Amino acid sequence: MKEIFPYTGKAHVIGITGPLGTGKSSLVDQLVRSYRLQSKKVAVLAVDPSSPISGGAILGDRVRMLEHSLDSNVYIRSMASRGDEGGLSRASKDAVRILDAAGFDLIFVETVGIGQTEVEIVDIADTIVVVLMPELGDEIQAAKAGLIEIGDIFAINKSDLPGADKVLYNLSPMLSTKESGWKQTAIKVSAKSVVGIGALVAAIDDHEVFLKSSIGATIARSTQRLKKELIDRVSDLVALNLRKRLEEDPEFNLALEELSKKELDPETASRRIAQRYISRDTN
Amino acid sequence: MKEIFPYTGKAHVIGITGPLGTGKSSLVDQLVRSYRLQSKKVAVLAVDPSSPISGGAILGDRVRMLEHSLDSNVYIRSMASRGDEGGLSRASKDAVRILDAAGFDLIFVETVGIGQTEVEIVDIADTIVVVLMPELGDEIQAAKAGLIEIGDIFAINKSDLPGADKVLYNLSPMLSTKESGWKQTAIKVSAKSVVGIGALVAAIDDHEVFLKSSIGATIARSTQRLKKELIDRVSDLVALNLRKRLEEDPEFNLALEELSKKELDPETASRRIAQRYISRDTN
Repeated sequence: MKEIFPYTGKAHVIGITGPLGTGKSSLVDQLVRSYRLQSKKVAVLAVDPSSPISGGAILGDRVRMLEHSLDSNVYIRSMASRGDEGGLSRASKDAVRILDAAGFDLIFVETVGIGQTEVEIVDIADTIVVVLMPELGDEIQAAKAGLIEIGDIFAINKSDLPGADKVLYNLSPMLSTKESGWKQTAIKVSAKSVVGIGALVAAIDDHEVFLKSSIGATIARSTQRLKKELIDRVSDLVALNLRKRLEEDPEFNLALEELSKKELDPETASRRIAQRYISRDTN
Repeated sequence: MKEIFPYTGKAHVIGITGPLGTGKSSLVDQLVRSYRLQSKKVAVLAVDPSSPISGGAILGDRVRMLEHSLDSNVYIRSMASRGDEGGLSRASKDAVRILDAAGFDLIFVETVGIGQTEVEIVDIADTIVVVLMPELGDEIQAAKAGLIEIGDIFAINKSDLPGADKVLYNLSPMLSTKESGWKQTAIKVSAKSVVGIGALVAAIDDHEVFLKSSIGATIARSTQRLKKELIDRVSDLVALNLRKRLEEDPEFNLALEELSKKELDPETASRRIAQRYISRDTN
């Protein structure tokens, strides 16, 4: 990573997110095909919010990507996100950097958008495409709120199903101009029938041009991301060390014993122990 | 919490989890009705894996619970889980304790099981009911792996739909005897048609009896949970303090500047800074 880092920052990183079952993988497949026709080098990173227990993958099925497997300008990989950090792992951030330094023009990062992951894709992607579809249940519709805030482009997939216009109709009033000045846009597509892919590619390219034209905002965002990453990494290293020390701390084990006997409550116990590891000068 | 904690540990906490759209809320509603007929005091905590950005809720729709709203022996509340801690928040853990101390016999904790949350319910619930249904898509089927490991009881809801027997048939060979000695069991139910609710209640009660009979294992598990909670709480307090200190640390800001110029990589930078906050004696 040390040698790679200086060579990063050239690729256009596109986050593809949305509820389960909206056909994200098929849509990415079509986008890859489209960008390959433009002779772009394309990488796909499918980040699976797999169970930390089983490591079982959700996105899976990279088989349909087999068509690209002999094309050395296409790189496809599934990664299981580790539990500790919520959806997208640090490993995927590093993988994006490696692909970036390796000269890929476009890097698609595909993830299921629900709960945490939708937020974390914001820390990785330059452009975020939210994939929706007709006939999602009520629960999923409600979950869209978070997705709507982060999306740059909304792709209403499976638009040959009834209800696609209704999704567009309901979505339109929610679209707004983001803080960056980018106007959110929605496009009906069908990965299966290869409909609207050109319009989606055009929207992605528009957003890339937009980002390049607002260079000040882009640098500020990049610095903000690096700051967050540095704080997170330092916190993790310190936490790792703390855990080791706690295991050997007699005060910790005493507090745990008192907790078990209910002579102490978790909050008081944690404050008492934490005090031993927080330096007095700043607290 | 300090005054409440000694009074906790009496309620039977039942985690209800499973993919979106399987009808968890309706099923809980039926279970509440059933336990109320036994004059049990029942609480329901619906923990929404809402977007940390919007706070938008997924489970929602507590309206159907209105029937119980005038019954003072039923307590129903939705909570949005906070982003930082992945699905189930500390607040929900505390809420369970408050309900426990308040004398509720049964506490249902309802959450969408995907990714992280399914694991965290393990830290809260005594009995875990995984709700599945026929005709879930491939993606969701694959996601079941993690759910299957944590479930004590599997409720195949909407069993009046075609395919319920197929779900049961596919699920059966995956069921096993858990480390605790409990044999996982699957039951076809329909919250809508009120089918199989009695069998589900019987299975939940069986599991409670099982837990009470293996008291040694139950205490060991409780201590293990408290240890994890204490480590997490201490880590959070230390991390909070660390963040404050980092903001004011000139070395941190220097490293950030070097990072932005790509004269330094994130890993080297974080190790350099973390070293300043890790005591030498234990590292």
